[in-house]
Amino acid sequence: MHNKLREHIEKIVQLNDDEFEFVCTHFTSRMFKKHQLLIQEGNPVKFSYFVVSGLLKLVHTDNSGKQHIVSFAMEDWWESDFNAYFAGTNATLSLECLEDTEVLCLLFEDYKKLCEGLQKMERFFLFKANHGFLASQHRIISSMTSNSKERYEQLLVQYPSLIQRVPKGLLAAYLGVSRETLSRLTP
Amino acid sequence: MHNKLREHIEKIVQLNDDEFEFVCTHFTSRMFKKHQLLIQEGNPVKFSYFVVSGLLKLVHTDNSGKQHIVSFAMEDWWESDFNAYFAGTNATLSLECLEDTEVLCLLFEDYKKLCEGLQKMERFFLFKANHGFLASQHRIISSMTSNSKERYEQLLVQYPSLIQRVPKGLLAAYLGVSRETLSRLTP
Repeated sequence: MHNKLREHIEKIVQLNDDEFEFVCTHFTSRMFKKHQLLIQEGNPVKFSYFVVSGLLKLVHTDNSGKQHIVSFAMEDWWESDFNAYFAGTNATLSLECLEDTEVLCLLFEDYKKLCEGLQKMERFFLFKANHGFLASQHRIISSMTSNSKERYEQLLVQYPSLIQRVPKGLLAAYLGVSRETLSRLTP
Repeated sequence: MHNKLREHIEKIVQLNDDEFEFVCTHFTSRMFKKHQLLIQEGNPVKFSYFVVSGLLKLVHTDNSGKQHIVSFAMEDWWESDFNAYFAGTNATLSLECLEDTEVLCLLFEDYKKLCEGLQKMERFFLFKANHGFLASQHRIISSMTSNSKERYEQLLVQYPSLIQRVPKGLLAAYLGVSRETLSRLTP
């Protein structure tokens, strides 16, 4: 399980065995069942999560009780209510399992210790943060310039395996279209 | 002018005089006139920019020639076509002055040298990258849950001085509403 983390980190920075052992001491492993909540709106957010296996949805519930999908996260992705995680505030988002899911949990204190103790890990997180920013910017531009059919096709090209696994109703919610509209788009 | 950079960095990490001098050797200063382009779509993107004074717009032009405002940047903000900057590809966005603007320019090579040479600067950029990601995520959630009136009011609270300076037509384009709709929202 930790091997997946090593492979993932070493796509960005190379670690020797001692360094990777140091990295591992900052993580704890947990299993969650389908439908379980990793983060619940209103509660403190202690951890960010590296997904070893499984699938998560990050959800914002608006004042009328409607759920909006902020993002999905599957193997090799990091997820949390990062706003609350970094600020030490309570969650405004919920993180829920769409499949049985195995994660590596990183306390915010341990994230800071990891960055301070090993500059390579600060570099790794900087790379991931820049990448996350660019993915969000791409999504903003796409929402301004593309219709739902084009956005669906972009998702298919970018994340083909994700599209296979996400229930169609949630995919429609993510794209901001009705279930019926999505049915007309899918082959 | 470099004092503004120091104040800006020291909101996140503290630097001694030698460290700040080292930081400064990585930047060059440039002045641009209103309407001048710092980045032109299709050209290489050599620099990211720290805005010392002035106001910029980052623009995506779609296939039909319509301009979409990706973001504005004023004093103390960083801006570039970061996707092209990090990947070494040509710009898909344009960066244009809305006012006479003074910037500090950072070559991508110098960004990397700065991070490698001074871990505090890697920490600074990590903080900024996380902040940029969260701002983008907030914008995505806001676009899913708020109408144009609410989005305008959120902007007023978050960036009151920006709203005063941005021409109303561009503000409408940023919010994705017509100039007429914006007029009904503004007092």
